[in-house]
Amino acid sequence: MSEQSKVSRRDVLKLGSAGALGLAGSYFINNLAPFSSSVKAESNNKNHSNMDHSQMVGDITKTSGYKMAEQLLTTFDYGKASKLPNGQTLREYEVVAIDKEIEIAKGIKFPGWTYNGTIPGPTFRCTEGDLLRFHFENQGSHPHSIHFHGIHPTEMDGLEPIAPGQKFTYEFVAKPYGLQVYHCHVLPLARHIHKGLYGNFIIDPKTPREPALELNMVMNGYDLDLDGENDFYTVNGYAFAFMNHPIKVKKDQLVRIYLSNLTEFDLINSFHLHANYFTYYPTGRNDNPSQFTDTVMQCQGERGILEMRFPYKGKYMFHAHVSEFAELGWMGFIEAE
Amino acid sequence: MSEQSKVSRRDVLKLGSAGALGLAGSYFINNLAPFSSSVKAESNNKNHSNMDHSQMVGDITKTSGYKMAEQLLTTFDYGKASKLPNGQTLREYEVVAIDKEIEIAKGIKFPGWTYNGTIPGPTFRCTEGDLLRFHFENQGSHPHSIHFHGIHPTEMDGLEPIAPGQKFTYEFVAKPYGLQVYHCHVLPLARHIHKGLYGNFIIDPKTPREPALELNMVMNGYDLDLDGENDFYTVNGYAFAFMNHPIKVKKDQLVRIYLSNLTEFDLINSFHLHANYFTYYPTGRNDNPSQFTDTVMQCQGERGILEMRFPYKGKYMFHAHVSEFAELGWMGFIEAE
Amino acid sequence: MSEQSKVSRRDVLKLGSAGALGLAGSYFINNLAPFSSSVKAESNNKNHSNMDHSQMVGDITKTSGYKMAEQLLTTFDYGKASKLPNGQTLREYEVVAIDKEIEIAKGIKFPGWTYNGTIPGPTFRCTEGDLLRFHFENQGSHPHSIHFHGIHPTEMDGLEPIAPGQKFTYEFVAKPYGLQVYHCHVLPLARHIHKGLYGNFIIDPKTPREPALELNMVMNGYDLDLDGENDFYTVNGYAFAFMNHPIKVKKDQLVRIYLSNLTEFDLINSFHLHANYFTYYPTGRNDNPSQFTDTVMQCQGERGILEMRFPYKGKYMFHAHVSEFAELGWMGFIEAE
Repeated sequence: MSEQSKVSRRDVLKLGSAGALGLAGSYFINNLAPFSSSVKAESNNKNHSNMDHSQMVGDITKTSGYKMAEQLLTTFDYGKASKLPNGQTLREYEVVAIDKEIEIAKGIKFPGWTYNGTIPGPTFRCTEGDLLRFHFENQGSHPHSIHFHGIHPTEMDGLEPIAPGQKFTYEFVAKPYGLQVYHCHVLPLARHIHKGLYGNFIIDPKTPREPALELNMVMNGYDLDLDGENDFYTVNGYAFAFMNHPIKVKKDQLVRIYLSNLTEFDLINSFHLHANYFTYYPTGRNDNPSQFTDTVMQCQGERGILEMRFPYKGKYMFHAHVSEFAELGWMGFIEAE
Repeated sequence: MSEQSKVSRRDVLKLGSAGALGLAGSYFINNLAPFSSSVKAESNNKNHSNMDHSQMVGDITKTSGYKMAEQLLTTFDYGKASKLPNGQTLREYEVVAIDKEIEIAKGIKFPGWTYNGTIPGPTFRCTEGDLLRFHFENQGSHPHSIHFHGIHPTEMDGLEPIAPGQKFTYEFVAKPYGLQVYHCHVLPLARHIHKGLYGNFIIDPKTPREPALELNMVMNGYDLDLDGENDFYTVNGYAFAFMNHPIKVKKDQLVRIYLSNLTEFDLINSFHLHANYFTYYPTGRNDNPSQFTDTVMQCQGERGILEMRFPYKGKYMFHAHVSEFAELGWMGFIEAE
Repeated sequence: MSEQSKVSRRDVLKLGSAGALGLAGSYFINNLAPFSSSVKAESNNKNHSNMDHSQMVGDITKTSGYKMAEQLLTTFDYGKASKLPNGQTLREYEVVAIDKEIEIAKGIKFPGWTYNGTIPGPTFRCTEGDLLRFHFENQGSHPHSIHFHGIHPTEMDGLEPIAPGQKFTYEFVAKPYGLQVYHCHVLPLARHIHKGLYGNFIIDPKTPREPALELNMVMNGYDLDLDGENDFYTVNGYAFAFMNHPIKVKKDQLVRIYLSNLTEFDLINSFHLHANYFTYYPTGRNDNPSQFTDTVMQCQGERGILEMRFPYKGKYMFHAHVSEFAELGWMGFIEAE
């Protein structure tokens, strides 16, 4: 692709900021119509006091990408559980790497490499001390692997590529408790991760956490034109997910978010909650120093647990406190009822 | 503006590093003469042992931008206070959004969008539990709003744009104690923030903090040529503020800095203090884990309190520990006497 | 150097990702043959299940750069110690700034500015309360200085450039205990630091830390074509150090890593350990809030101590959790036996 024909994220932003949206025709502009039209309004029309964020993304029907993001929010894969003779719980998970086109924003398709068909992959979940077996089959077009964060023998750390058509079982005892991530570790690393091969991996403490509404959130980005810069940013794979269909919670209910950053090409990502504070536990550990705040950053591979209650009814926006990321898809709402 | 005519920050740095300063004529070079001449000395002359940082910015008279930065350092806006029948303190603040040209470096003007005519805006201050009313009037040319960090009803979170000529009163109870920030939340977000619509918002704890010399510092950047990269970095809006007129403190005196990062276009900013350490309280909360160090980073929207004493008389440099940011304006001195 | 002839890191990555490695001939490709050939395999050949990270860098003999990185890993410069009449320990260090070509990756030379001939410079070490004298002589071609982090009189903070041929003795009492860094503070700052003038500076607490295998690691980058972006990333100055000759530790042994970030041109760097966790002490202080995790980030000038034990025998990879940095040299192995 020549330099001339590329449309990078900077161009998109320049369009917005320089008011040059008369230049239409890019696939961003055509496909992100609700977003671009609000930007156009901003650029061309100084009298638009009744534009707000909820109108920005229009009346989105829940397309396949939107449904994927919602499904990943509250679905946890506990594997197939059984008891071993010694009383230990064995959990067996089926993981298949498959090439799959994913809708990452309204009408925008991304040629993904996935675990089990979604970006991010499934949220694996277990309890500290469980014996885990991840039966991995590579049905994709490239070698892949699963690198789990956590403590385990190095033979199980996913450095070894599994060729297309091959299988491998990762087996280890779940430890330590906390929030882990997993991702492919085949070279070129940036490309294998960026294509979609990552997800959250929750190891619950043996003493269960306080009951809560639990939400899974993976921050990521997509580089569509392969220029090494992301064109979209999302939580759970779909731009502007949870904007027009906010996440519903109850007023005063304990809400727990498992948040990680698997964004490639940008050095950090961040999470900001409007009109509220949360307690942040780095790496999801109660014995790590926690913070009471409304804004946290994570480098790639970092993760943590956020706990909060919503004291008033209403729609609380959450987004990256990187304006560019927010405007390119990483923003949503939680609605307390 | 064509690619050819732009002078980006990278060009400025390349000039410095590649010794190509024979190429004069850019507005950076002409206007930042004291800075550029020291760079030129560095590039062309190997025998310049008597150049130091204080000479670098020449003998600056306190121009309007310099005075603005100084004023913002020690001015706190407590609003108009009164007592409600129930004994609660009511504080009412007047906030006007106005387009205003701001001097951001010696001789460099920036077409700002401001709250009350400065970049950053005023430092609002109150005590936890106070009832706050921010009477906001948009006298600017674009829709704006005020998004306050903190805990309050979502109707008060500043998502709704206020049209030019319109007014809105934000009313909520001040909580939680700590250091908050505020900024415009109208789209395109990056441009509205970057133009200057942000500031610090201190909610003091009900039990007052230990008396100290208190200083307000907002880290920011300015993108003059709209290329999505900052050309200047400052604390309190003016490049190289506090270089030639250091902040005066007393030896062994407790000094408390309210530090936030509202820099657009760069993922983090940082603060480093020479020849001393400080205690850093994230989000300005005593119950958050504090650190004893000399270097901290903040993503956009992050903020914290730094407390320190200066054990020796002398001039202590402080600056971003990002060399580029420091060289483009984000450095100053504290002088202990 | 014209834009056309430059080979930036983005180009290198594009080569890898776009499969355009038929375009050979760049010095990266020629000199980093083991790396590039694996990238080529990745790009051109879908059936390469037996490629792994250890093969990626080939069978490297320990060249001069490799030996430098290894030497810096376990060598600590305690200076020449003597007792003062009052019982205080005096430590005197010899530091010479010299221009020196450094091998930074297999066959790649970098025209460095160094302290004592290595990049990073020596790891100075002492105990809190010691009187320190750094006898600095500038034998380089440009003015230089040594800026030490820590608490000391401002006259000793290294702002004053020392001209080529001149000497200066920095004298101060070592405090506070923890991990400090030092670097040149002459303008242009980014270039003086980036050329190699930095290192770690350990001030041990008066009560010694628990005995451990101690390792020194400085994260850095190299911008070969002066485009303001790093082309290689390393720990201790040499790309892919510790890949083919892993750092040897004993199973269950306490390992302590003194880690700092002196990378220019990128806002953060990070450290991730495979298949294990560590306890991270920011700024190397036991009284700072520590974290149990496997991934930490540092902005430039930040540093900390990592403590860990390896519960299984095997080769544990460690690398930046920035894929680009890892692929451009910042990855290695620790082998537990």
